[in-house]
Amino acid sequence: MREIVVTTHSYDLGELPELGNRFLIGNGYMGVRGTLEEYDKEQLAAVNLAGIYDRCGDGWREPLNAPNPFSLRLYRREEDGSDRPLALPSAACDQHTQSLLVREGLHRRDTRFSCGVRWQVERLAHMEQVHLLALHAVATAKEAGQFCLKSTLDGDVWDIHGPHYREMSFPTASEHQHGVEAVTNEGDTVAVCCRWSLSTPHHSATAVAQRKQEAILDFELAAGQSASFTLIAAVYTSKDCKEPLQAARAAVLNAPEYDELLASHRACWAKLWERAHVQILGDDPAEEALNVSLYHLLSIAPRHASSLSVPARGLSGQTYKGAIFWDTEMFMLDFYLAVLPEVAKTLLRYRIDTLEGARAKAREYGLRGAFYAWESQEGGYDACSDYNVTDVFTGRPMRTYFRDKQVHITSAVVYGLWKYARWTGDDSLWREGGAEVLIEAARFYHSLLIKRVEKDDDELWNVIGPDEYHERVNNNAYTNEMARFVFEQTLEVCAQLKRDAPEAYKALAQKLSFEEELASFQQAAKRLKKPTIRPDGVMEQFDGYFALEDVTVDAVRARLKDPKEYWGGAYGVAAHTQVIKQADVITLLFMLRERYDAQTLRANYDYYLRRTEHGSSLSACMYALAACGIGRPEEAYPLFLKSARADLDGGGKQWAGLVYIGGTHPAAAGGAYLALLWGFLGLKIEGNQLKTEPRLPKKWRGVQCRLWYRGQAQTLSVQQP
Amino acid sequence: MREIVVTTHSYDLGELPELGNRFLIGNGYMGVRGTLEEYDKEQLAAVNLAGIYDRCGDGWREPLNAPNPFSLRLYRREEDGSDRPLALPSAACDQHTQSLLVREGLHRRDTRFSCGVRWQVERLAHMEQVHLLALHAVATAKEAGQFCLKSTLDGDVWDIHGPHYREMSFPTASEHQHGVEAVTNEGDTVAVCCRWSLSTPHHSATAVAQRKQEAILDFELAAGQSASFTLIAAVYTSKDCKEPLQAARAAVLNAPEYDELLASHRACWAKLWERAHVQILGDDPAEEALNVSLYHLLSIAPRHASSLSVPARGLSGQTYKGAIFWDTEMFMLDFYLAVLPEVAKTLLRYRIDTLEGARAKAREYGLRGAFYAWESQEGGYDACSDYNVTDVFTGRPMRTYFRDKQVHITSAVVYGLWKYARWTGDDSLWREGGAEVLIEAARFYHSLLIKRVEKDDDELWNVIGPDEYHERVNNNAYTNEMARFVFEQTLEVCAQLKRDAPEAYKALAQKLSFEEELASFQQAAKRLKKPTIRPDGVMEQFDGYFALEDVTVDAVRARLKDPKEYWGGAYGVAAHTQVIKQADVITLLFMLRERYDAQTLRANYDYYLRRTEHGSSLSACMYALAACGIGRPEEAYPLFLKSARADLDGGGKQWAGLVYIGGTHPAAAGGAYLALLWGFLGLKIEGNQLKTEPRLPKKWRGVQCRLWYRGQAQTLSVQQP
Repeated sequence: MREIVVTTHSYDLGELPELGNRFLIGNGYMGVRGTLEEYDKEQLAAVNLAGIYDRCGDGWREPLNAPNPFSLRLYRREEDGSDRPLALPSAACDQHTQSLLVREGLHRRDTRFSCGVRWQVERLAHMEQVHLLALHAVATAKEAGQFCLKSTLDGDVWDIHGPHYREMSFPTASEHQHGVEAVTNEGDTVAVCCRWSLSTPHHSATAVAQRKQEAILDFELAAGQSASFTLIAAVYTSKDCKEPLQAARAAVLNAPEYDELLASHRACWAKLWERAHVQILGDDPAEEALNVSLYHLLSIAPRHASSLSVPARGLSGQTYKGAIFWDTEMFMLDFYLAVLPEVAKTLLRYRIDTLEGARAKAREYGLRGAFYAWESQEGGYDACSDYNVTDVFTGRPMRTYFRDKQVHITSAVVYGLWKYARWTGDDSLWREGGAEVLIEAARFYHSLLIKRVEKDDDELWNVIGPDEYHERVNNNAYTNEMARFVFEQTLEVCAQLKRDAPEAYKALAQKLSFEEELASFQQAAKRLKKPTIRPDGVMEQFDGYFALEDVTVDAVRARLKDPKEYWGGAYGVAAHTQVIKQADVITLLFMLRERYDAQTLRANYDYYLRRTEHGSSLSACMYALAACGIGRPEEAYPLFLKSARADLDGGGKQWAGLVYIGGTHPAAAGGAYLALLWGFLGLKIEGNQLKTEPRLPKKWRGVQCRLWYRGQAQTLSVQQP
Repeated sequence: MREIVVTTHSYDLGELPELGNRFLIGNGYMGVRGTLEEYDKEQLAAVNLAGIYDRCGDGWREPLNAPNPFSLRLYRREEDGSDRPLALPSAACDQHTQSLLVREGLHRRDTRFSCGVRWQVERLAHMEQVHLLALHAVATAKEAGQFCLKSTLDGDVWDIHGPHYREMSFPTASEHQHGVEAVTNEGDTVAVCCRWSLSTPHHSATAVAQRKQEAILDFELAAGQSASFTLIAAVYTSKDCKEPLQAARAAVLNAPEYDELLASHRACWAKLWERAHVQILGDDPAEEALNVSLYHLLSIAPRHASSLSVPARGLSGQTYKGAIFWDTEMFMLDFYLAVLPEVAKTLLRYRIDTLEGARAKAREYGLRGAFYAWESQEGGYDACSDYNVTDVFTGRPMRTYFRDKQVHITSAVVYGLWKYARWTGDDSLWREGGAEVLIEAARFYHSLLIKRVEKDDDELWNVIGPDEYHERVNNNAYTNEMARFVFEQTLEVCAQLKRDAPEAYKALAQKLSFEEELASFQQAAKRLKKPTIRPDGVMEQFDGYFALEDVTVDAVRARLKDPKEYWGGAYGVAAHTQVIKQADVITLLFMLRERYDAQTLRANYDYYLRRTEHGSSLSACMYALAACGIGRPEEAYPLFLKSARADLDGGGKQWAGLVYIGGTHPAAAGGAYLALLWGFLGLKIEGNQLKTEPRLPKKWRGVQCRLWYRGQAQTLSVQQP
């Protein structure tokens, strides 16, 4: 694999939020935003932690950012004795490059200040020892001078709905060693320790002030001389162990030197890329974009855990409350299944382990079974608010129905479990709680069913489908068909379990007393209302959709009175038109693709593509898949690239009013992989065998990648015919 | 009966819209707004016609205003030869009184202009010959001078969503006679003819310009001399006859002189008051207010028709599209039943005759039976738009659900028919289409029923109850119980018809083939979900209401960012709180009052009164009735007065943005009568006998009124014990 280097020479303040995402490094335990060392919370610097959350007052509950050990500033002593900061954007510089080494998982900066000092910093989030962060910096002086380095353990972290640390203490620092212990509002502890060394003789001092512990290192450089500084830090929380501070201290003391850490980090990345790397012959830009997407998916994969999932914005910050959405099962899971099946299992175990939270949510709404959280935090707690959007005209929160009406979320969990079993051939998850999830999911949908007294169909009313611009609709095609899928899978897995693992089945039957309900699931699978399909094959997105105003996306956009106003809700510009936010019917046609023929796919692709705003980064890949499915890879190509480049190009919304909503887009990254696998390569599972039916864009000469299917490595190698 | 004179000395332009309503005269065929003779459409002058509508372009369909024959201006010739208008508000005046003689149904103005001219005008809408309008004016000069009178047949009428006349012609005027024939966009014709005479020698000329035909009469007055001018006008439309112009011309020619018309008009009013007048001993202001309310109900009663109903804003203009709402059956009908039972029958025949429109509306929504129009125009056409409110923040129309979700409207029609039969003892309406309405109403509710697959109840989802601030709720208590009432009444009337009129029953059964459905109606009456009732008796307005934010009306009001913003809808300040627009549960407890005990009434009154904004003029009377029902007449009194004085005090909203929404409030007037009859007098029907159980406010010494119950006049005479 060639190195892929993502670079920028910009340090424009307006671009910082996006650069922080584009240059993210991470290891599944934590993500370090791609901000420069001299930046602090104002520039959205953050060490974002996976799976630990806190709520401050009435604010949204969100994941923690750890005290940042990577805060580092170089100063040059002036003739008048003052220290002049060599920090961007204020200090004049002749050349500046920020880069992400995708193959090696390294973040670098290299700045030549106009005063003649060159400042190079490399840093990593260790891929094997996931509690460790490491940094290596080199200052080179053109002219002799006095310098000062301030290395800060910065507890004054960036928060969206903070502050989250109600207490913070800095145990006495020994020489070359710092540590902080911070306690959250919910009583969790986060500890960060670090040790450092400077290659050149220096005088050091320590200062603590305003949630910052600072090492101040004074040193001299002769003309042309360099000094190198290394820092090793460890992060532990009370979710990891009882004494996070001691654990962090021990980890830092026991950690090897930087070079050794760098070597093991590289080796780990090399192994990962050996599995994950995709070659696209004849199209370097596409290959690069796709592999950058995979880099992000690898950087946030919880390889260290056995039951943890990936937030919708990865580990790039607190946006979307660090919560797990359907994105994981529907858009990212296939990559992990193909490349790191153990990670896929970890993601699904998270859903099994949060079943209790899903049961509690169902009870809250007077329903049975498992209603999974729309925005799931640990324990399955639903962080989604009833007021999720702010009205730009009144500044008031708007009642939204994502939490209570987007009932398709439970089907996504079932679909994920089904994909796991089907892909890996490993049915252990069914026995380890997966079957219980299925039964509770079927119960959930069954308790939602209604019937018009005068009609025969069972129906699902008052829901929101994937297209969130249309609220509280009846019989959303996606939702109904996915609910039917849940009923069917539940019946199938129960039958399979009864046959293959009678003891497990018996235990489950005793625990849940579900056997008498199976007949009603079967009946529901038959009776649940089928979508209306026009003679030409176009499926109605929900009851009454075809009667809505049929107008172009541009015409709807032209009705906006404020560029930031919400298109959906009760009165949004799209709400009473056929314009939709994202793939909805088209998503269904991909997910249950074995049930629909090419003619149906073609009719719906042609109908809905023109009516889709793509207001979600989950949309383009679904249309790319559909375009491939009907033999139009050239139409799929730009949609695929849009998905693959989501975190390279940025350009998505970064702010909603004063709230930062930017971050990485792992679902788009996963969607690009879906488009490659099931779209361009035309992968199919037939009788447990993988087959490809390639439909490559013209300029691609071929594609090569590796998969782990049913425990076996396979190399897919496809040529343009 | 004493004369009641409503007066004002104001001619402030800001008050004109309200004065136009307060001083309205009418005769059921037409209403003449209480504007002065010199006013035109800018001051909202109008001769509003009953039961004839027109739509212009994409505007709302609304009733017609006829060309106005009452436009009259007096001029005094100045020394320079110019004509100086003696017209308010521009001409200086020393004294001005506008008055409504409630007993005699006369509108008067008496203005002493500072120049020494007194100008008195009296006018009437004839109560027997309802096509006739008449006016008598007297000009008296202190000093001798030259005068000019311009009497205009003004076709440049006020329209809210006009213009409605696509053509207008003025057939050649003979001396002392004018006429206009106007054709609407929908092809109807409205003709107005008039003849006039001036008591003093004069020179006359005629001019036609800009939809106006003007008689210009020049005359002299000696010092202290008077001249009197009379005008008789007739209005006919193509709904009345084939040749409305000829009919109007003949009517004008055949009409007697003003004095004779005045006498017969007075006699007619005298007879009406003999039936309707209510005496409240010890409380003149209350007696006056109540009889003013009854004046308005008498002025708009369609005594001339056999199948016509009363619009929600009476005949005061085009507000609310001149449409018939549930107001008629639920709030006004009892007055007509008690005083003019034939009018009550006429109102109900309108509903029977518009059954076809109700059937068409049900079909439009994929339902069976009769879904009556929320805003009914002729033929049962539903004039209600899907976008009935304008968002003050964006200026955009808001999707509202009055038309499609306020399904309780059909029950109001059934309830009206039931009241008629019960009060009059006349079951002819059942045979003349009423039973058919019942069956179609039961079919409608049956086709709306849904059932959760896991529950036993039938339910009604996604409705709006009387409290319009809460949209799309499930199992609104009022709606469910009124639907149950429909099922029960249908069964009862069918059984009765089968027993008492087997031929009529057989014919109906053949026409509608409903017999097999009766069992399902019976089942629905049993299964329909009952409201949740707390241990203390408070009934939940709809599923989930008790879980809404419990906050005071004032606190909700304080959240308004714009005084005109809508409290309801998806995001209104009241929408997600327990604050309601108007009586909802309390309305149910009155309508089906024989089913609920005093404890239930007390608990709900105490609970809901504090949570009610009274944003509708239909609200106060329901709480007055409840307060009487629990023996608190002193609490009822101000609520009763609020209803009774609705058109005396004004103060309601007159404008929504640029659209005029003011008008008279006949439902509030009817509500005041309800409060008297069923509240203060405690009227009850027991075994077909009327009984009273009075609970009068302390200051009332007694109440006396007459009723026509089951064909017999009865005098109710109640004393304070």
